[in-house]
Amino acid sequence: MRELFADRHIGTDAAAQQQMLEALGFPSVDALVDAAIPAGIRLPADAPTTLPTAASEVEALAELRALASRNRVTRPMIGLGYFGTVTPAVIQRNVLENPSWYTAYTPYQPEISQGRLEALINFQTMVTDLTGLATANASMLDEGTAVVEGMLLARRASGSSSNVFLVDADALPRTKELLRHRAEAVGITLHETAYDVSPPPADLDVFGAFIQYPGASGRVWNPSEVISAVQAQGGIAVVAADLLALALITSPGELGADVAVGTTQRFGVPLGFGGPHAGYMAVRAGLERQLPGRLVGVSQDANGYPAYRLSLQTREQHIRREKATSNICTAQVLLAVMASMYAVYHGARGVKAIAHNVNRMANLIADALREGGAEPVHAQFFDTVQLRVPGRAAEVVAAASAEQVLLRQVDADTVQFSTDETTTAADALVVLRAVLGDAAPAELGFKPVSRSIDPEHMRQTEYLTHPVFRTHHSETGMMRYLKYLADKDYALDRGMIPLGSCTMKLNAATEMAAVTWPEFANLHPLAPEADTAGYRELIGQLSGWLADVTGYDTVSLQPNAGSQGELAGLLAIRGYHRANGGEHRTVCLIPSSAHGTNAASAVLAGMSVVVVACDELGNVDLADLRAKVAEHADDLAALMVTYPSTHGVYEHDIREITDAVHAAGGQVYVDGANLNALLGYARFGDFGGDVSHLNLHKTFCIPHGGGGPGVGPVAAKAHLTPYLPLDGRNPVSSAEYGSPSILPISWAYVRMMGAEGLRRATGAAVLAANYIAVKLREHYPVLYAGEGGLVAHECILDLRPLRDATGVTVDDVAKRLIDYGFHAPTMSFPVAGTLMVEPTESEDLAELDRFIEAMIAIKAEADAVGAGTWPKDDNPLANAPHTAESVIAGEWEHPYAREQAVYPVHSLVHGGKYWPPVRRIDQAYGDRNLVCACPPLEAFA
Amino acid sequence: MRELFADRHIGTDAAAQQQMLEALGFPSVDALVDAAIPAGIRLPADAPTTLPTAASEVEALAELRALASRNRVTRPMIGLGYFGTVTPAVIQRNVLENPSWYTAYTPYQPEISQGRLEALINFQTMVTDLTGLATANASMLDEGTAVVEGMLLARRASGSSSNVFLVDADALPRTKELLRHRAEAVGITLHETAYDVSPPPADLDVFGAFIQYPGASGRVWNPSEVISAVQAQGGIAVVAADLLALALITSPGELGADVAVGTTQRFGVPLGFGGPHAGYMAVRAGLERQLPGRLVGVSQDANGYPAYRLSLQTREQHIRREKATSNICTAQVLLAVMASMYAVYHGARGVKAIAHNVNRMANLIADALREGGAEPVHAQFFDTVQLRVPGRAAEVVAAASAEQVLLRQVDADTVQFSTDETTTAADALVVLRAVLGDAAPAELGFKPVSRSIDPEHMRQTEYLTHPVFRTHHSETGMMRYLKYLADKDYALDRGMIPLGSCTMKLNAATEMAAVTWPEFANLHPLAPEADTAGYRELIGQLSGWLADVTGYDTVSLQPNAGSQGELAGLLAIRGYHRANGGEHRTVCLIPSSAHGTNAASAVLAGMSVVVVACDELGNVDLADLRAKVAEHADDLAALMVTYPSTHGVYEHDIREITDAVHAAGGQVYVDGANLNALLGYARFGDFGGDVSHLNLHKTFCIPHGGGGPGVGPVAAKAHLTPYLPLDGRNPVSSAEYGSPSILPISWAYVRMMGAEGLRRATGAAVLAANYIAVKLREHYPVLYAGEGGLVAHECILDLRPLRDATGVTVDDVAKRLIDYGFHAPTMSFPVAGTLMVEPTESEDLAELDRFIEAMIAIKAEADAVGAGTWPKDDNPLANAPHTAESVIAGEWEHPYAREQAVYPVHSLVHGGKYWPPVRRIDQAYGDRNLVCACPPLEAFA
Repeated sequence: MRELFADRHIGTDAAAQQQMLEALGFPSVDALVDAAIPAGIRLPADAPTTLPTAASEVEALAELRALASRNRVTRPMIGLGYFGTVTPAVIQRNVLENPSWYTAYTPYQPEISQGRLEALINFQTMVTDLTGLATANASMLDEGTAVVEGMLLARRASGSSSNVFLVDADALPRTKELLRHRAEAVGITLHETAYDVSPPPADLDVFGAFIQYPGASGRVWNPSEVISAVQAQGGIAVVAADLLALALITSPGELGADVAVGTTQRFGVPLGFGGPHAGYMAVRAGLERQLPGRLVGVSQDANGYPAYRLSLQTREQHIRREKATSNICTAQVLLAVMASMYAVYHGARGVKAIAHNVNRMANLIADALREGGAEPVHAQFFDTVQLRVPGRAAEVVAAASAEQVLLRQVDADTVQFSTDETTTAADALVVLRAVLGDAAPAELGFKPVSRSIDPEHMRQTEYLTHPVFRTHHSETGMMRYLKYLADKDYALDRGMIPLGSCTMKLNAATEMAAVTWPEFANLHPLAPEADTAGYRELIGQLSGWLADVTGYDTVSLQPNAGSQGELAGLLAIRGYHRANGGEHRTVCLIPSSAHGTNAASAVLAGMSVVVVACDELGNVDLADLRAKVAEHADDLAALMVTYPSTHGVYEHDIREITDAVHAAGGQVYVDGANLNALLGYARFGDFGGDVSHLNLHKTFCIPHGGGGPGVGPVAAKAHLTPYLPLDGRNPVSSAEYGSPSILPISWAYVRMMGAEGLRRATGAAVLAANYIAVKLREHYPVLYAGEGGLVAHECILDLRPLRDATGVTVDDVAKRLIDYGFHAPTMSFPVAGTLMVEPTESEDLAELDRFIEAMIAIKAEADAVGAGTWPKDDNPLANAPHTAESVIAGEWEHPYAREQAVYPVHSLVHGGKYWPPVRRIDQAYGDRNLVCACPPLEAFA
Repeated sequence: MRELFADRHIGTDAAAQQQMLEALGFPSVDALVDAAIPAGIRLPADAPTTLPTAASEVEALAELRALASRNRVTRPMIGLGYFGTVTPAVIQRNVLENPSWYTAYTPYQPEISQGRLEALINFQTMVTDLTGLATANASMLDEGTAVVEGMLLARRASGSSSNVFLVDADALPRTKELLRHRAEAVGITLHETAYDVSPPPADLDVFGAFIQYPGASGRVWNPSEVISAVQAQGGIAVVAADLLALALITSPGELGADVAVGTTQRFGVPLGFGGPHAGYMAVRAGLERQLPGRLVGVSQDANGYPAYRLSLQTREQHIRREKATSNICTAQVLLAVMASMYAVYHGARGVKAIAHNVNRMANLIADALREGGAEPVHAQFFDTVQLRVPGRAAEVVAAASAEQVLLRQVDADTVQFSTDETTTAADALVVLRAVLGDAAPAELGFKPVSRSIDPEHMRQTEYLTHPVFRTHHSETGMMRYLKYLADKDYALDRGMIPLGSCTMKLNAATEMAAVTWPEFANLHPLAPEADTAGYRELIGQLSGWLADVTGYDTVSLQPNAGSQGELAGLLAIRGYHRANGGEHRTVCLIPSSAHGTNAASAVLAGMSVVVVACDELGNVDLADLRAKVAEHADDLAALMVTYPSTHGVYEHDIREITDAVHAAGGQVYVDGANLNALLGYARFGDFGGDVSHLNLHKTFCIPHGGGGPGVGPVAAKAHLTPYLPLDGRNPVSSAEYGSPSILPISWAYVRMMGAEGLRRATGAAVLAANYIAVKLREHYPVLYAGEGGLVAHECILDLRPLRDATGVTVDDVAKRLIDYGFHAPTMSFPVAGTLMVEPTESEDLAELDRFIEAMIAIKAEADAVGAGTWPKDDNPLANAPHTAESVIAGEWEHPYAREQAVYPVHSLVHGGKYWPPVRRIDQAYGDRNLVCACPPLEAFA
């Protein structure tokens, strides 16, 4: 008997599945899935596959080690937004390698997410302090896309009617490429200028300007005049600033900037060949409501105690749809937590000391270069020094590389290098030898260095002054702070998180193992190809496997979130049409049931959205579709459709739908959000999909990290390949491979499951969802079942009849589930007043039954409210969740017992009950009183 | 500014230390320590050191990686008690790499240790099930010492007056060496016999017999006749059994054995070049009270709910002193937890399948060998096959080694190999090529194999039948079970564990990093020297550094617990006297204040104990010492003395004491338990110590692991070197280097602290203890202060006056501290009715103050009891600890408020309160009703 990883990944064993099948009246999982999935799209069970036979965990790790050994770990001094950094071991072990942090979900249920919300508010405080601006959000996907978001923010917030955006000639090259690709789609004209050579003229007509600070060339300068000039005519100034440099140089806020963006990578987040890292965005007062992405704010709970939650959610794309200002959704929470903890651990003094050391090392090298006759191009720099080496640039870079140090070749005559926290004297000597040859000194010596930052540029203001940045500086203290925060939160290591459409499945330890190996963690995204052979092979294999299982020809792993995959896919459709005489094809059909991000992405791809109706079963209304297709036959760009639908149903007409779109010259975009219901049983490419994005953080086991990182590969048929983000073309993120350091997770999952394991996982997921549906149907109506009353991998429980009968809301039920030890299912999506439950294949039968028991018990409680046993405003549901304090302190004045409040089922008494740290949070209060930085300690008194 | 690891390791920064010094009235830490430590023994601050300058965390990791790269990871098929095994990744990540497990202490406070106690009772159940015996303890140090303990148990439990112990000729070679070294010291005569050639005669006169099962040669046989013969004349049969083999072959219990011992290494615990691993011991009914070591039992809490705790503690050496039956104390808890979780994760079916696979692979190779003309020596085997290769043994071993596979060379004509869970077909082919040369097959093929276990040897009985072994088979389930258990426990990641004499300091993440690297984790202890160069260099460096900081000449890292270091040191003294005409020198002087283990170790080293009185200050009574020395001048072997004393005081007469002993021809053994009060300020070897043991798990940062592993190096002056466990001589543990895989922890600590850092840590530890003493002195008398009223690194709070005044006991205070969120200090050691507080250098001032606040608040509560505010049997102290359930469920009938019970200080309300899972545990009930295996689920209903 050979041990199969699939048997560990799938929670229900054969005996449990038998029991569940009996409840459903099916003889086998295959019979169940056969009944659920339309026959016309089903893949034969013996369909050929290019996936290798499932490897054991040991074998997969051995293969990963072999791949790792083909990456060469060097000392990257290339810079350009990516720097060597030291991840404090206490943070690596207790955050990055700790399932209590990495298996958590986005903090949509704030009462059970206070730990990571506190970490994120620390992050926001760190960013606002260092940038000198009023409000920061809880991370962007990377620096490049943050600049794009800054441009879009500038356009909508600017008083100017111009469609021109000014771009710094000294911006990062990749940022310029991203701006070009993204601006074109939304009709923005870019105007590149060298601010030091040609400052913006007085008669400038732009809606905003972008400034890289310090410049990509390393230059430190004072952009305040440029900023004033732009603002004088109503424009918005967007500054990309190096967060570590801001420890020493004047902040963007003090210079007058409206928006600051950048990356927090060098705050302790490994290079990872390009990602994932947390980008940031901060804005001046008055622009808060323009911020894209997620924003953590302070509100209060039912006791008036300070509590954190996501603020201003009505801005977000899942609510605003095509009126949204951004399509970003998943952020980079886990990495933002790490960066914020780096600041917490080092404090202002530590961060400043690190910045000083980095600058001093750059000066040490620059001084030695000057002594050897090589004068740096810029006299003012923080960490990056550019040098003219006429005709010798390639040779200098090669000489350094031979000694394990990577420099940047700017052009044939110019090189530059960047110092960082990890730069050693030995590295410095390599640089000197590469540039000066025999004239290089043998030692650096300890001498006073020049000043490369004039006093006028030096920062005068304080930062990181909140006590949280002064308290946890010993490793013991830091370890306990991380544990204290993690203990507040509910993650997959406590119990089921049955979030419909989010696929909260197992993130196996073996899958996670390679992420922190130095050979995967410590590579620069611009390292030479020869240094990254292992990574490239892994990426090639994973791309091939994903293409195979989805029926597509090409996969790009670059998009670092599902939203970015959508955008990349739609931009590919756009590119295809334009290359084939279809410039006018700009209409995107989207069913009314679609996730709001679909519409937001379409707008950002330069399309206009036309909504297609759904029928009463939740399926696309075929007649309405045909009508809309006919109406837009000439300008039809695409249909975006989710399969199975966002209602959790396998639509039987899917082929008719895709055929109709194709017949009118449109392309079909299949949203892969629900791929977990299909893998191994059907393939998007086989039933009409031209392009899709997948979510590796849903279907392919990358952990949600509390709200990111995500990876949203875009997969397409061959005719769209030229328009995908591949080989430097059509970029949608800063790094060519997006977030490579987490790709070993999905690689390992596919490698250990094999085709058969993936198929079995799908079957188990569909079985679990149908089991819950059948067990709960008599208590809550199940919306939108497909043929035979079957759902796909999730089911929607309709709570509206309960609300009508009892007054108990979906919110009450969700919060009451916390008292029972559960994370709530997805609330009010895709239908208001419902809960969408997706158990995934990883939950075992005991946990499924525990959830069913809880839902039934809650129904009985609601019925008691309806029956008048308890008042509508004072009952276990209305008061949920109950903290320990709330049932212990003071007199008990509720009409139900304390035990009923917190131990409604007996298994909770000795079963390791999870105690929420706060009572129900007042959402409106937080939006009315917007506070997005660490509150003073007195607030907690 | 260079970042120093010492600044992270030490909890109090300069500002905090200044504040603490002001409370004490000293200008500096050095001034404080100068006032505390006798001038005569102080090391000059500028004393030369061979320790390298402190490395940063990054530098230390780089050096460790360089050392690791010099170890060659091969496929070890040497066997002899060490086997390749697969550590399930979910167990590695969530136990071995999780501070919630590895920073816990021995479960002496059972109410806050229920998680690891449950894991240990699973371990005991696993061992009793597989061995077929009635009761197992919660781990032995390794197989070899477990056999020695079995021999000692046999002598005391046997009805025979013989002093002869029969030893299996087919025992592991190292076990025989250990038995020889240990038997000699206690006057036992060993008689080795080949049971198959010369079975025990009827007129046998032995107190017991040892059987290796299967034999070291791999032979599977039926020892029941030997067992009967031994028992027939009153002897005890001790069987060392391979736990994995027992999944297939008849268990020792069914064969009639009295005692079974062995290792659980191959249940998922990495080889680690020899350790640490958990040994086991199980006994038949009637011998429970003879078990050495720690035994977990089921009792009940104040509500009558089942609760785990350590049973029969009165057997233990710290209570029984020289009457103890064993000196073992620290066990191998962390490794026992891992092994038990391996069984939980695989269940009976999984373990049996693994055993089958191992056996099948051995048969596959044996069959191919037979086909090639090489007939195995034994027809019956489980995993180990012995072969005659006349004259070619070395050549065969070399040929396999050249292909990365290690075989065992038995003698010039004989080789053998062992299969294990990790053996692959490729490994098998290497074996075949090495033995058969060109006659080896090119492939193994998939054919039926011979049976190497006759039906008469096959096991017929079930095992691992408890539900816990059937419930957690998915990775999600296992991860949650581990979290659920960890959540019950209090470890260093929650708060201070101020256990006097236990030195619960930071176990830094960087120190822990290398433990799980394959190059350290996957080496066999008998791997060739060339394969282990990195390990040997690390061991050499660490030994040298430890010798340097203690003032000795030689260090052996072999002893795998403090008790074993003591024993090794005393055996070295014994060996020295015997080699120098002092056979009669057998008296060991031990102060009355000494830890009981001292006396137990002395007895096991063949010495008789004479107690020396202490004076009212807790110091050795110099007059009594001189009198005892004079009385025993001729037969004086040694003085054992702890420095600073177990009272936490620097005795000023230490030089007079050691001089007096030396003058009489005795040797001075300085117990290193309190080295954390001395490092960098004084050295044992400089003030008269001849030999010491250190505790790397106290002073040198190896985590306590919930009660082990420990490492107890023995350090000595040159004249004792020939008698230390070095180079295969004088063994005290199974593996030559004891527990090498955790030595990188201490190596990293010393490497990152440097001499200056170690000295600073000592100063901070002494400062913290004195700060607590001065802050609590007015509430609790501090016993045994030295000159100037100063203590060393710990202080004893006398609770006897409080008890006399109020009836509140030390137990009440300890349990009440749980309600305040603390682990209690050491209770009633070295003085009954006291608490000994050792904060260590790693706690920060906020945590020290929180503890002081709690102790003062508890004093006020006790005073209220004394004043009659609350009844003596119903108050917050008597009812402590309070579970959440106990303050929530039902009517509240106590004379104090629910809030007073669980939120006695405000910071607990929102401060992440730790909730104990059970109320106070009835110790006596558990001893009266001894249950040491998993209770049935109904017990929890």
